[in-house]
Amino acid sequence: MKVIEYDKGVLKLIDQRFLPVEERYFECRTLEDVVYAIKEMVVRGAPLISISAAYGVCVGLYQYKDASKIDYIFSSLRNARPTAYNIFAILDRIEKKIKSSNFKTIGDLIKIVEEEARNIHEEDRELCNRIAKNGVKVLSENANVITICNTGMLATGGIGTALGVVYEGYRLGKIRRVYVLETRPLLQGARLTMYELMKNNVPSTLITDNMIAFLFSRVKVDVALVGADRIVRNGDTANKIGTYNLAVICNHFKIPFYVVAPYTTIDLELEDGSQIPIEERRAEEVKFFRHQQTAPMEAEVWNPAFDITPSELITGIITDKGIFKPNEISKIAVNQF
Amino acid sequence: MKVIEYDKGVLKLIDQRFLPVEERYFECRTLEDVVYAIKEMVVRGAPLISISAAYGVCVGLYQYKDASKIDYIFSSLRNARPTAYNIFAILDRIEKKIKSSNFKTIGDLIKIVEEEARNIHEEDRELCNRIAKNGVKVLSENANVITICNTGMLATGGIGTALGVVYEGYRLGKIRRVYVLETRPLLQGARLTMYELMKNNVPSTLITDNMIAFLFSRVKVDVALVGADRIVRNGDTANKIGTYNLAVICNHFKIPFYVVAPYTTIDLELEDGSQIPIEERRAEEVKFFRHQQTAPMEAEVWNPAFDITPSELITGIITDKGIFKPNEISKIAVNQF
Repeated sequence: MKVIEYDKGVLKLIDQRFLPVEERYFECRTLEDVVYAIKEMVVRGAPLISISAAYGVCVGLYQYKDASKIDYIFSSLRNARPTAYNIFAILDRIEKKIKSSNFKTIGDLIKIVEEEARNIHEEDRELCNRIAKNGVKVLSENANVITICNTGMLATGGIGTALGVVYEGYRLGKIRRVYVLETRPLLQGARLTMYELMKNNVPSTLITDNMIAFLFSRVKVDVALVGADRIVRNGDTANKIGTYNLAVICNHFKIPFYVVAPYTTIDLELEDGSQIPIEERRAEEVKFFRHQQTAPMEAEVWNPAFDITPSELITGIITDKGIFKPNEISKIAVNQF
Repeated sequence: MKVIEYDKGVLKLIDQRFLPVEERYFECRTLEDVVYAIKEMVVRGAPLISISAAYGVCVGLYQYKDASKIDYIFSSLRNARPTAYNIFAILDRIEKKIKSSNFKTIGDLIKIVEEEARNIHEEDRELCNRIAKNGVKVLSENANVITICNTGMLATGGIGTALGVVYEGYRLGKIRRVYVLETRPLLQGARLTMYELMKNNVPSTLITDNMIAFLFSRVKVDVALVGADRIVRNGDTANKIGTYNLAVICNHFKIPFYVVAPYTTIDLELEDGSQIPIEERRAEEVKFFRHQQTAPMEAEVWNPAFDITPSELITGIITDKGIFKPNEISKIAVNQF
């Protein structure tokens, strides 16, 4: 299964909305297709969104064949989803690259952006590997791990962030079992993480999001590994809704709770989590599963897609540059690119 | 909408599996129908299950017209679901009633059991009212309440337990809003509690089970009110899966957490929660919503229907006899009947 492919102005994505029931592909031939794919979560996962956006710039340039459209292309992609930081960091990088280059023709410009997008994609693969190598240090022998959402091959350009640590740990014989939170409302844990782990033969058990405390009272879980959509200066971390619940319960049971993310997730311009914009999505995501109604039609719903885990509940942040205490995260130099 | 009706050997139940999408009824004309209705959750909620079981004895006697079948009838009903205590307490009560009576004919026996079942049903209505009158004392003015599962008119013979307190509080103008946990996997919160609250015009907001901590960080929630399936001597409480999660998170945010239940829920024969049998249900409840697949077909699933909240996380237990500290619950006399 190919997760993401780009060639000559066409971005092909596995449509994650239909996994694991169907392996269907979504082809983006216009900028609008790419924006739709990000907004509607055809593609998701902060690192993979940013790779898609990088290729999305190429798709837009192919479509318009007009360098003066570049600002419109950037702003369309920047407005697709507000919470994850990687997409902003990656688009900034491409913009900088364009500014520092001396392109003459639209063909030159496309070539420059395509090369940078491919670099970003390839670098993300390497970031995942470096993160995994650092992350396995927090795994005890024969570890039971709990995780939320999907942070693996369907969320990145490589083996994943939190799930990358699991894969590397499994390769080294350190993983006993992974407990996967189904991750309502869109069930990325049930649909995507279970699918990935089962394809890779990693022993896994699916639970609903409300079983955490009872699980911890019955099974010795050694560590929680979660991804991140944005980490700010004081270590507060935005991630998939449910992460904060998990962190509070880990704290109660004294289970180490690690955030796992590449440096591109770190936003040193924000002081603390209260400044992170949190995307609220439509009520229908909670009131329906596909076409199946799960609540009264007129029910009032609150549907934040992310939450913000305060740094004091985070044991450490595992990055490609090492493992940091949350309050040390600002040591990672601001200008990485 | 009638929730439960009994007449001459026929028990008619609203089929809660189809709410709120359809108001469909399920007619029990045999003991096996009643057992099926309890096992498959056509009817659910510890008090309402016990009322259904009481009428179920009548259904069985009508069906067999044979007093010697009474032990078989009792054991069939007792084996329907293991965790909630009320059904055992109520069936014991009917058995005692039969033993103390001097019936001559099957007609007499049926009359005795029918009368007792109707008494039990009527008493449950009164229990709900007494619980509600006690419970409103824990509500601050203009209270935001959070609750899980369904503990209202669809779970009891009256206005409910935890939700009964809400209804009485609302009548007194003390409720600002109720936050309803959808309660995976079977979504009793989304499907049943939202339906009830909306029918009764109580302001309500539906959230998924993994939003608790983030909600508490954004909105001042004043109190958690939850039901119970079994409360044991030290105050440990079995209730719908997710209750323990909620209790841990309330504890972290210093939000009072009350269990609300009639005395029939209290099992003084068990010392602590570790002795409560916890029903594990089939994996398909997690992997499908109705006919919609939500996870890989072969995924391994853990699906406990209940969890056990340790007494130290419980602020108080609201009963028809008053409000108790968890460690005082054994003060309620053993023999209530």
